[in-house]
Amino acid sequence: VAREAGVIDVRELGAKPDGSDTTPSVRAALEAVRKGEGSKITFGPGRYDFYPDRAFEEYLFVSNNDEGLKRIAFPLKEMDGLEIDGGGATFVFHGYTVPFLISGSSQVKLRNFSVDFSRPFHSEGKVLAITPQHVDLEFTEHYPFEIRNGVLVFTNGKKAKTKATTVTSGEVVYPYGSLLAFDPIKQETAFMAKDRYQVGAGIAAHPIGPNRIRLRIPNISARVGEILVFSPKNRDVPGVIVTDSSGVRLTDITLHHCGGMGVIAQRSADLFYTRLKVTPPSGGHRIISTTADATHFVNCRGRIEMVDCLFEQQKDDPTNVHGLYAKITHIFAPNRFEVSMIHPQQAGVDFIGAGTRLELNDGPSLTEEGFANVKSVERLNKHRTIVEIEGTLPESVTVGDSVADADANTAEVLIRNCVMRGNRARGLLLGSRGKIVIEGNTFHTPGAAILFEGDSRFWFEQAGVRDVVIRGNTFDNCNYGVWGTGTIQVGSGIAEEFRSTSRYNRNIRIENNLFRSFGRVPLLSLYSVDGLTFTGNRLEKTTDYPLPDGQESKLFDVTDSDDVKIEEPSTVSEEAAVGG
Amino acid sequence: VAREAGVIDVRELGAKPDGSDTTPSVRAALEAVRKGEGSKITFGPGRYDFYPDRAFEEYLFVSNNDEGLKRIAFPLKEMDGLEIDGGGATFVFHGYTVPFLISGSSQVKLRNFSVDFSRPFHSEGKVLAITPQHVDLEFTEHYPFEIRNGVLVFTNGKKAKTKATTVTSGEVVYPYGSLLAFDPIKQETAFMAKDRYQVGAGIAAHPIGPNRIRLRIPNISARVGEILVFSPKNRDVPGVIVTDSSGVRLTDITLHHCGGMGVIAQRSADLFYTRLKVTPPSGGHRIISTTADATHFVNCRGRIEMVDCLFEQQKDDPTNVHGLYAKITHIFAPNRFEVSMIHPQQAGVDFIGAGTRLELNDGPSLTEEGFANVKSVERLNKHRTIVEIEGTLPESVTVGDSVADADANTAEVLIRNCVMRGNRARGLLLGSRGKIVIEGNTFHTPGAAILFEGDSRFWFEQAGVRDVVIRGNTFDNCNYGVWGTGTIQVGSGIAEEFRSTSRYNRNIRIENNLFRSFGRVPLLSLYSVDGLTFTGNRLEKTTDYPLPDGQESKLFDVTDSDDVKIEEPSTVSEEAAVGG
Ligand SMILES: [Ca+2]
Repeated sequence: VAREAGVIDVRELGAKPDGSDTTPSVRAALEAVRKGEGSKITFGPGRYDFYPDRAFEEYLFVSNNDEGLKRIAFPLKEMDGLEIDGGGATFVFHGYTVPFLISGSSQVKLRNFSVDFSRPFHSEGKVLAITPQHVDLEFTEHYPFEIRNGVLVFTNGKKAKTKATTVTSGEVVYPYGSLLAFDPIKQETAFMAKDRYQVGAGIAAHPIGPNRIRLRIPNISARVGEILVFSPKNRDVPGVIVTDSSGVRLTDITLHHCGGMGVIAQRSADLFYTRLKVTPPSGGHRIISTTADATHFVNCRGRIEMVDCLFEQQKDDPTNVHGLYAKITHIFAPNRFEVSMIHPQQAGVDFIGAGTRLELNDGPSLTEEGFANVKSVERLNKHRTIVEIEGTLPESVTVGDSVADADANTAEVLIRNCVMRGNRARGLLLGSRGKIVIEGNTFHTPGAAILFEGDSRFWFEQAGVRDVVIRGNTFDNCNYGVWGTGTIQVGSGIAEEFRSTSRYNRNIRIENNLFRSFGRVPLLSLYSVDGLTFTGNRLEKTTDYPLPDGQESKLFDVTDSDDVKIEEPSTVSEEAAVGG
Repeated sequence: VAREAGVIDVRELGAKPDGSDTTPSVRAALEAVRKGEGSKITFGPGRYDFYPDRAFEEYLFVSNNDEGLKRIAFPLKEMDGLEIDGGGATFVFHGYTVPFLISGSSQVKLRNFSVDFSRPFHSEGKVLAITPQHVDLEFTEHYPFEIRNGVLVFTNGKKAKTKATTVTSGEVVYPYGSLLAFDPIKQETAFMAKDRYQVGAGIAAHPIGPNRIRLRIPNISARVGEILVFSPKNRDVPGVIVTDSSGVRLTDITLHHCGGMGVIAQRSADLFYTRLKVTPPSGGHRIISTTADATHFVNCRGRIEMVDCLFEQQKDDPTNVHGLYAKITHIFAPNRFEVSMIHPQQAGVDFIGAGTRLELNDGPSLTEEGFANVKSVERLNKHRTIVEIEGTLPESVTVGDSVADADANTAEVLIRNCVMRGNRARGLLLGSRGKIVIEGNTFHTPGAAILFEGDSRFWFEQAGVRDVVIRGNTFDNCNYGVWGTGTIQVGSGIAEEFRSTSRYNRNIRIENNLFRSFGRVPLLSLYSVDGLTFTGNRLEKTTDYPLPDGQESKLFDVTDSDDVKIEEPSTVSEEAAVGG
């Protein structure tokens, strides 16, 4: 095989599409890149398997996923200009193996491959019967399980590699943390299905036949024939982790599964995802793709583009773009205070160092209280840091207020021509302070299609948009689930008493979109906005879903806002809409 | 308060015995030590509380305990000559807080305090009734619990600090991993009680009254009135972790509890424990002290002394002195091979670096195959390392053999005048290659009082003693439990077919001891020993425990050994023994 200059073919380093572990060949290829022997790593068609046994290891704090000492198949650290071309390969990962880490790198390109796992981190059971006291379920061979001491336990169906001892069972298990029903015909969250949380300690069960169990849990929101999905207890294994990097291009990549978010980017800049698909594998044996958001951007800068993407049936939103708030938990002196990361999945995602420019934020009202430059920090642990600033805090800043990195979460965002459907929860959660353009997309989300979030009392996610254009999109029967009060919605955590004065989100233009709506919720459900125009939009009323209470909602619910211009949408018939 | 030169009183730095968090004062005191302001930190009488919130944090691999990102109240790192004098204080730790870490330090002294936890990591339930199908239990307020989705869950009885979200319950829970019955009258493991393992996924249960539950688990080895102890699933919170340090003196310290081993020392030298007590708190509300071994020494050198200690009712052995074996899992070339840490609780406890002298060990026979000097290592992850040696491996070395650090696990050991009783399992597991003296101790252990272990097929603990004297001890009705085939026993993992040739343990002298025995097992149960003398010992037969099968055992079961000299013990009556 003639080697193209600068190209490292993993197949020349021992990788074979025969079920053997590809991890050592990838390590050898990355070592060759480090030695300057090339900047492009290639695969070819076929299935390549990756096992955790010999994988790189690092303790990672990954925002909105779960921290931990992780095994990583492709550890792309301090790489500049690396390209990995899968050549159409299917990458299959085994156990708790993170596919990709891009850390401290620039101009990294990944393309032309798909990702799946030998055993998904979630499990899916078909509902055979349901009563107020229990649910009867049937599992296929894709979701091995045992009833152990009367408790349902998901396994990988294999015997332990190491012998059980006093101290370990030596086996791989798949703990679950919540339940949600999906509709196997429509391939989406079941109509108005509710999550059941707090099952992380297990659920009592007993066998009722081959691969059939009776789950002893009352009042589950599901119907016979639906698929009850057991979400993993933790988000331990995201698909692609991008951290402290810039210039990442993901092109023609399909993520069939991972045990966390599909692509999570934090403290990074210039992220371009083209024809990124998050979708279950073909074959119909799985309704869920990734077990959390398809994509997610935290404290990112520069530019974010997602074009021609498909995000379907993942067990959380298509994307979320936001910053981080740390709560002020103690003030030692006007120039010295303690901040805490409150949300467990932000712990360790440090964003304050000497030189950081802090935005000071009033907790309950989400209004700006000024800025401060950080002189030094003393990190106590992943939760708490003591911060010393130049000058002093404004007097209005008190314990309970919060700080954000004023220069992060500033990315310009373009989301164009993407399809988002069938997932749990919402569509786009937009919180970047940079200019945002959302155009030509199709949404069929069970909650709000577009949500303006942000709060510093619960999730501690910084948001508050400054300039958003939403145009030429189709909102196709959104809000068939429980997550949301409008198709385009503000959900920012501004305390009721401050909504009349806070203007957390600003300058939102909604133009020339088509809303296909069955009328359960308003098209707009907004508050505390400064600058809103709703013009040139079309509305097609549908009967595709029932109205739970028989009542059609009003179209607009906009309160506590300034400079609002709403044009009634033109109404179109179904035929006209399809034709147009 | 006049400050003694070089003495830092935490009470002058804000510490108060009033329930407030002492951690910040300890941090300030250690900072003062680092600045050279003193080398002794003092407390005084009273209860000082320690919370995880502001504690130091580090990811620790702790041999025979569980690795993890731990909070540590007293992080004694790179300290030389530090002394901490508790002045009679009681230190009470909350949640997952490791009391002491001594790392990279020399000549550290700790003295005069006791350690307890606000909520123990294990739980104890009184057996009300038992059938082949279930156990009825009653818990006191010391062991808060809930039945959640039909599964028993232990909690701290407090509401979550953070609100529950999709991703976390925000609460502190205490997972359990095994069950064992204890006798509340005798304050020891219940007679011949067996562990029930593999309950880490939880056990189905339902309430049968206030603080009473019916545990739906069959065939539990317990009787009405006994205490069923739920061991923590992991050993996450040892009491004192000593790593890579030398010259550690623990004097007049009482450990009432911790969630792991009491004092675990690894890769360290010169460890002196005087009047170290591991014992439950007074008051009778708890039968268990520490949830694993009282003390443990891994790959230690220099000298180990334990004098005038009390180790009782901990949920594993009083001590274990051993090395580590890594298994050869791949040979790339005669000078290059992969080794793996097989036992999960040895993962990450690295002991091979450039310059390490390796002992090469035949796996199944535990015989030496030579030595090799390490040229370089490439650590893949916590489990696997690729080793390059100077020269080549002997041809007899194959995959499946193992390596140890030939210059570690060499400590001289003195254990004198200690009392060991009521714990789970065995007494002293002796495996140091240095000279060992065990004298004047009293053993009342449910398994073997002294065990010579070591294997490279299961636990991967290097042992194989070279020179042991056991004299003047009282073995008081040992072997009232299931762990062991003799009061002094070899349990080394030598494959049957190699026992006639392997001589893993050598030169054991057993002199002038008193054996009080009810006759269930031999006094000696040994194989593959080179050099054994048993002289001047006395035997008193007791009827303190029943003989399960009515049969009295023979006194000696010694096979496959060389140079054995056994003198029949003189028999003494009960009165004479008490008088003598
Ligand atoms: Ca304020």
